[in-house]
Amino acid sequence: MEDWSECLDVAVQIARRAGQVVACAAQQEKRVSSKSTPTDLVTETDHQVEELIISTLRHRFPSHRFIGEESSAAGVKCELTDSPTWIIDPIDGTCNFVHRYDLRLHVLFMVTQMYSSVPNTRSFSHSFPMVAVSIGFAVRKELEFGVIYHCSDGTLYTARRGHGAFCNGARLQVSRERDVSKALILTEIGAKRDPATLDIFLGNMRKMLSAPTHGVRIIGSSTLALCHIASGAAEAYYQYGLHCWDIAAAAVIIREAGGCVIDTSGGALDLMSRRVVAAGTREIADYIVKQLQPINYGRDDSDPDGLA
Amino acid sequence: MEDWSECLDVAVQIARRAGQVVACAAQQEKRVSSKSTPTDLVTETDHQVEELIISTLRHRFPSHRFIGEESSAAGVKCELTDSPTWIIDPIDGTCNFVHRYDLRLHVLFMVTQMYSSVPNTRSFSHSFPMVAVSIGFAVRKELEFGVIYHCSDGTLYTARRGHGAFCNGARLQVSRERDVSKALILTEIGAKRDPATLDIFLGNMRKMLSAPTHGVRIIGSSTLALCHIASGAAEAYYQYGLHCWDIAAAAVIIREAGGCVIDTSGGALDLMSRRVVAAGTREIADYIVKQLQPINYGRDDSDPDGLA
Repeated sequence: MEDWSECLDVAVQIARRAGQVVACAAQQEKRVSSKSTPTDLVTETDHQVEELIISTLRHRFPSHRFIGEESSAAGVKCELTDSPTWIIDPIDGTCNFVHRYDLRLHVLFMVTQMYSSVPNTRSFSHSFPMVAVSIGFAVRKELEFGVIYHCSDGTLYTARRGHGAFCNGARLQVSRERDVSKALILTEIGAKRDPATLDIFLGNMRKMLSAPTHGVRIIGSSTLALCHIASGAAEAYYQYGLHCWDIAAAAVIIREAGGCVIDTSGGALDLMSRRVVAAGTREIADYIVKQLQPINYGRDDSDPDGLA
Repeated sequence: MEDWSECLDVAVQIARRAGQVVACAAQQEKRVSSKSTPTDLVTETDHQVEELIISTLRHRFPSHRFIGEESSAAGVKCELTDSPTWIIDPIDGTCNFVHRYDLRLHVLFMVTQMYSSVPNTRSFSHSFPMVAVSIGFAVRKELEFGVIYHCSDGTLYTARRGHGAFCNGARLQVSRERDVSKALILTEIGAKRDPATLDIFLGNMRKMLSAPTHGVRIIGSSTLALCHIASGAAEAYYQYGLHCWDIAAAAVIIREAGGCVIDTSGGALDLMSRRVVAAGTREIADYIVKQLQPINYGRDDSDPDGLA
């Protein structure tokens, strides 16, 4: 049995490289267009970064298959077979990514260096700071490893099945909290904003707030929200409307950090089902499963636009 | 007329010192208790840091007055007079602050230094990463300056009335977007979770999502959310249920970055009214004002618990 560690090494290299491209692009003017809905955004950088990742990997591993957010949006069939398959989100948090101030203007203004103890490049990265590159890898439909690079702060999350989950070299461990009243819950708003969908989305959020929990957070990146579950910074995540490329890498990382990643019905995760519950403990996952009313976003493998 | 720049210098020093105390405490076990409601949390660190800030400032400026989150919760009257008054939030984002993984455990596990390019202390700070120290200063009821220190990443936001707003030395500028359909909107969930309050909270959120906007984010720190308005990373913020210490410093920073900070009714900001709309442009602020249904949280100067 292959351990795919060579593939993981390559994934780490390419995720870092892609993340640096995204971080640079975050400081430039962007042409933004929309995909399935007016709120489902894409930029040139999403396309460029996906092309960079897939072309590099295809050159190295010519027999492998690829599922990528932008290739799928462009009509490439999103299909998970038994073949080794890379599942790629070039920029998770595109909407965050496009919200930034105009750096060039600020350079002109930067005359007064008030209260700057050291020259600090971070003062320039004012995109809404939750943007990530996500690369997952599955063989025989089983997730083998995941790599997530947080573009704004350079944090790297990695996990390989059976070998633990790591954040910049430190082992990750989910929260062991079982009491939902002490839980911090994360979710994301899907692309659909029609009244019926909003009814269910807000109804689910009301249930989470009424439990009561410590609170609900919406940070604008499914991938990084899932990393917060892996690190124990929050107890649970649920969402309808995400895609296989949002969850593939994170699912391995959360499981290897000791958490569970399941379907919103309580059954096994179906990577193509566009829905997920992830939690540090099964108790909190089960509580959330019982509360949720489903939103139908179709499937990644039959309806790439998710608007069926 | 005094320019209060000496006070601002001291505020910057003490905000950095306080922020470092918070960042260290984020890696230790915390005793958490609740204040006005089960979801209104406080830790020993909140008290210690407020005491550190106020005692330092009182020693330096014995004639000044102080309004602090924890002093107010302990029954000290929250009153804004014409005297020079410091308005202090020792830890904004306490609920985020208490959500962290157990570092000590992870140190034991840190045998495998997988994929760590350099030793990186950031890999240890896994509190939900939105926690800040906020220090505002008002004279004759007018806000003169504000200092906000982001404890997780060391970013420092400062502004003095008439002298611009800065982030680590770089001048800040709000978003100039006037079209709400391209806006990223931030809000926070107040401490009240009764059904009537949740109805209004979720109803307001529905209006923001239906506009449609690019999206709504809830990050768990009013202060840092307001800093995102100042930096142009998001277009607008609204909230019912925040306190004067959440908004005092940020209001100066946003205004000096070119934005507007007003009451949810559309009138002038009332620092004690526990409600605010902040935006890069007046157009987007006005749009939000028209949409919002009010939630009554009482006033900081008559009802410190906010549950009137």
